[in-house]
Amino acid sequence: MSVPGTLHGVGLGPGDPELLTVKAVRVIEGAPVIAYFAKAGRRGNARGIVDRWMPANAIEAPLYYPVTTEIPVSDPLYNAALAAFYASASEELAAHLGAGRDVALLSEGDPLFYGSFMHLYIRLKDRFPTRIVPGVTGMSGCWSAAGEPITWGDDVLTVLPGTLEETELARRLQGTDAAVIMKIGRNFPKIRRALRQAGLYERAIYVERGTMSDEKVTPLADKADDAAPYFSIVIVGGRGRRP
Amino acid sequence: MSVPGTLHGVGLGPGDPELLTVKAVRVIEGAPVIAYFAKAGRRGNARGIVDRWMPANAIEAPLYYPVTTEIPVSDPLYNAALAAFYASASEELAAHLGAGRDVALLSEGDPLFYGSFMHLYIRLKDRFPTRIVPGVTGMSGCWSAAGEPITWGDDVLTVLPGTLEETELARRLQGTDAAVIMKIGRNFPKIRRALRQAGLYERAIYVERGTMSDEKVTPLADKADDAAPYFSIVIVGGRGRRP
Repeated sequence: MSVPGTLHGVGLGPGDPELLTVKAVRVIEGAPVIAYFAKAGRRGNARGIVDRWMPANAIEAPLYYPVTTEIPVSDPLYNAALAAFYASASEELAAHLGAGRDVALLSEGDPLFYGSFMHLYIRLKDRFPTRIVPGVTGMSGCWSAAGEPITWGDDVLTVLPGTLEETELARRLQGTDAAVIMKIGRNFPKIRRALRQAGLYERAIYVERGTMSDEKVTPLADKADDAAPYFSIVIVGGRGRRP
Repeated sequence: MSVPGTLHGVGLGPGDPELLTVKAVRVIEGAPVIAYFAKAGRRGNARGIVDRWMPANAIEAPLYYPVTTEIPVSDPLYNAALAAFYASASEELAAHLGAGRDVALLSEGDPLFYGSFMHLYIRLKDRFPTRIVPGVTGMSGCWSAAGEPITWGDDVLTVLPGTLEETELARRLQGTDAAVIMKIGRNFPKIRRALRQAGLYERAIYVERGTMSDEKVTPLADKADDAAPYFSIVIVGGRGRRP
């Protein structure tokens, strides 16, 4: 029996290909198998980010989501479809690992921070050696693009999914020093109202595709429409100790 | 008059020199002036991390803290000493920038996430062009070293400084899905008690010098002593949606 391959969870950072770490580039360039998630029929953001780093002879293993936004997350069918997908994707990677081939599974941002990578990781980590290469998170990319320090001194930072209910969002915003709101998309009008309720509306900054060539940064109050991609972010910088 | 230089805030990541981004390496290798914070009489962690990337002919500008732990943060003298230091350090960099020399100011982790960089940035950003190179945060390095997914699905993440009061820490821990506690040091016994009160003690993981060659990772409950450096971290992974 051959020595099993290692599963590498490789963080790609917020989108600018130069924001891969030196280690991520090394792992990708040396990997016999490069796996990545994508929407069916698309190449996917992750694969696009690593274009310049792809080794010529690697086996590519695209993992196509069976659903993305067609079924609501709350529908049991969504859960069942995703569970079956993660199970079969894990077996696809297990076949490579079992044959002794290392697999680099690409992960936008950081692999263990809201990453799809984690769903395969928990299915494979007790069967094969695993290594994590941390990445710059999407939120770091966004506050850097905005030039907005996020936390000072003893500030508390709260990271909130925009999917939370309005009253819950407002309550949590009221109780924190600094905030990042993720998963905007259709939650945008609700997020605006919650920020107003919490008295943070004038401090909020909207960032879309931070660090990418087409990034947009604007004070939230100056954004006239409510059109926002799911992966846009709203940030509220803290006001802690500044000697 | 010459064209002014650009101030680059360069994130160095959690400690492993390979976790600099490709962009951070490029900026450092091309910078005529490399500035970094250090404790008086020391070389400093930041300078150590970039050893292999230092350009041969760069001007080094070490910025020595006038105090670190000798005066409590709550003492007005601490604030006054730091304010004077940040002002004079800013003028030192302004002299280079004004003479047309770009400055790379090194920042452990991410420059805008609890970074000393920010204190010079706010003093210089309206006088000179500035650019931020985001970095992998120390906390990403720690949860990666632990192999512990930090947030799933719609989990709320709260980042807490260990300097908060015990009841406040416990209250905030109780109300979150996932947590990162920073600035441990002498706050360690208090942090243990707060985690117990919040019912999270058994889930907490202690990480010291994550991603560095001498990193330590252990379930908090298994750590017998209360000795912990200031930059160690305690993490509590979320338990959100996992299809």
